[in-house]
Amino acid sequence: MQPIMSVEELDRFFDAEFPQMRQAGGMTLVEIGPGFARMCLPYHPANLRPGGTISGPAMFALADVGLYAAILAHIGPVGLAVTTSLNINFLLKPDPQDLLADCTILKLGKRLAVGEVRIYGRQDGHLVSHATGTYSIPPLAKS
Amino acid sequence: MQPIMSVEELDRFFDAEFPQMRQAGGMTLVEIGPGFARMCLPYHPANLRPGGTISGPAMFALADVGLYAAILAHIGPVGLAVTTSLNINFLLKPDPQDLLADCTILKLGKRLAVGEVRIYGRQDGHLVSHATGTYSIPPLAKS
Amino acid sequence: MQPIMSVEELDRFFDAEFPQMRQAGGMTLVEIGPGFARMCLPYHPANLRPGGTISGPAMFALADVGLYAAILAHIGPVGLAVTTSLNINFLLKPDPQDLLADCTILKLGKRLAVGEVRIYGRQDGHLVSHATGTYSIPPLAKS
Amino acid sequence: MQPIMSVEELDRFFDAEFPQMRQAGGMTLVEIGPGFARMCLPYHPANLRPGGTISGPAMFALADVGLYAAILAHIGPVGLAVTTSLNINFLLKPDPQDLLADCTILKLGKRLAVGEVRIYGRQDGHLVSHATGTYSIPPLAKS
Repeated sequence: MQPIMSVEELDRFFDAEFPQMRQAGGMTLVEIGPGFARMCLPYHPANLRPGGTISGPAMFALADVGLYAAILAHIGPVGLAVTTSLNINFLLKPDPQDLLADCTILKLGKRLAVGEVRIYGRQDGHLVSHATGTYSIPPLAKS
Repeated sequence: MQPIMSVEELDRFFDAEFPQMRQAGGMTLVEIGPGFARMCLPYHPANLRPGGTISGPAMFALADVGLYAAILAHIGPVGLAVTTSLNINFLLKPDPQDLLADCTILKLGKRLAVGEVRIYGRQDGHLVSHATGTYSIPPLAKS
Repeated sequence: MQPIMSVEELDRFFDAEFPQMRQAGGMTLVEIGPGFARMCLPYHPANLRPGGTISGPAMFALADVGLYAAILAHIGPVGLAVTTSLNINFLLKPDPQDLLADCTILKLGKRLAVGEVRIYGRQDGHLVSHATGTYSIPPLAKS
Repeated sequence: MQPIMSVEELDRFFDAEFPQMRQAGGMTLVEIGPGFARMCLPYHPANLRPGGTISGPAMFALADVGLYAAILAHIGPVGLAVTTSLNINFLLKPDPQDLLADCTILKLGKRLAVGEVRIYGRQDGHLVSHATGTYSIPPLAKS
């Protein structure tokens, strides 16, 4: 499994297609590798919930966009690939800090891709949530 | 299963504890009933993704906050109840419109609550996503 | 959504393709309707776990086969439709009794079908588990 | 995270509490380590489905029992720990062969444990399914 898009190419794609990612609470793509992407959610007050912890929806978005980036990196800039399901387990309330999401592709089929995400604190390294997601790949992708 | 908080009481709780819900893309609680809550995600450009459809994270947040409201309505304003897991299936790309989330409690135990959410378009009534979530209830709740 | 196979036709299909369903602990198809199937897991000691309750894997199998029957009833006897994911929440330890699974199709697309299952006791009616499953439909089905 | 039970102690526990595991299609515990258990599902015709592949419910049971073993190895022989939810993704139809399940604990809390399972062929090493599960730990455990 070899990526065919670089971090810079994916950044340009996300800038054009998902400009809201660059707003407050926006994520940045840190690294692309074989079957892999690392995404960062910078610490920002808008992503907090009571108790000062980072909100579930912010972590869901991090996992979803991170897996999406991992898949696009391997199939090319297909705007119409869509999430069909995502399961997330919240393990620990993260302390206020940047979160990193390590996204690994488990399956890259013709019609479906499945991946796994581990989200952990950039400072303390604690695993705070774990997700698995499934993405539908449109028929013309990978051609 | 009878609710012990009204829509107005929950609104005050969310205003105090989750002010970010009232921002752009913010949700409103429409109805509370036995084992039930209905939440609305008003149509807003910030929640869109490529193709003009409503983003997955926006629907995740709607399901999560809706189930949270349904549970709090039955156990009281416990800020420390937390989502432990959420599984969401995206069924259909919604046309641009308000989305409603019908949230039903499947189990309300001493330590865990489980619920189901159906998200559908306010105008066309089409089911666009379905979620199930689990919430941990802190030991002092329900006393 | 109208079924195109009857209970009897599905029974013959399962007898030919899944003979192990008829063994101890085997399930029976009770009813087919629009977007719907009801499956029964008869009470049998082989499905028990410590405490006399019915095992999780037995309920998983009930949900999976029930949804599979619901989908086949609407697309025809396609032996190669496969489960791509299944999420199950165990809500209550069932008392020893037959279990019924009400299986509802949430989406019947060309490539993916998604459904929901409620499993409850035939005698006491208590909801004991809830599942959602996704099935991949092979390209030649529905023709 | 250090295990407090050996493979032999867990085997005795399973023999006493889950004798059905030893029947046809039964699983064997291969290894216990820090935060980890490896379970084996021997190849057996009773676990097959159409096309000669291993059935989903057999893989569900493997993941569930494997995670259960991993957790018990760390908290002691608590018969009443129960699965609260399990999510499984089926990635590839396995060729007929023994399956191994590598079960890793992601969180071991006072009330909930969460773990992840990778199931792969013993001969070809291909990843065939991936699961995450949540287990409720009774109040008296870990004392």
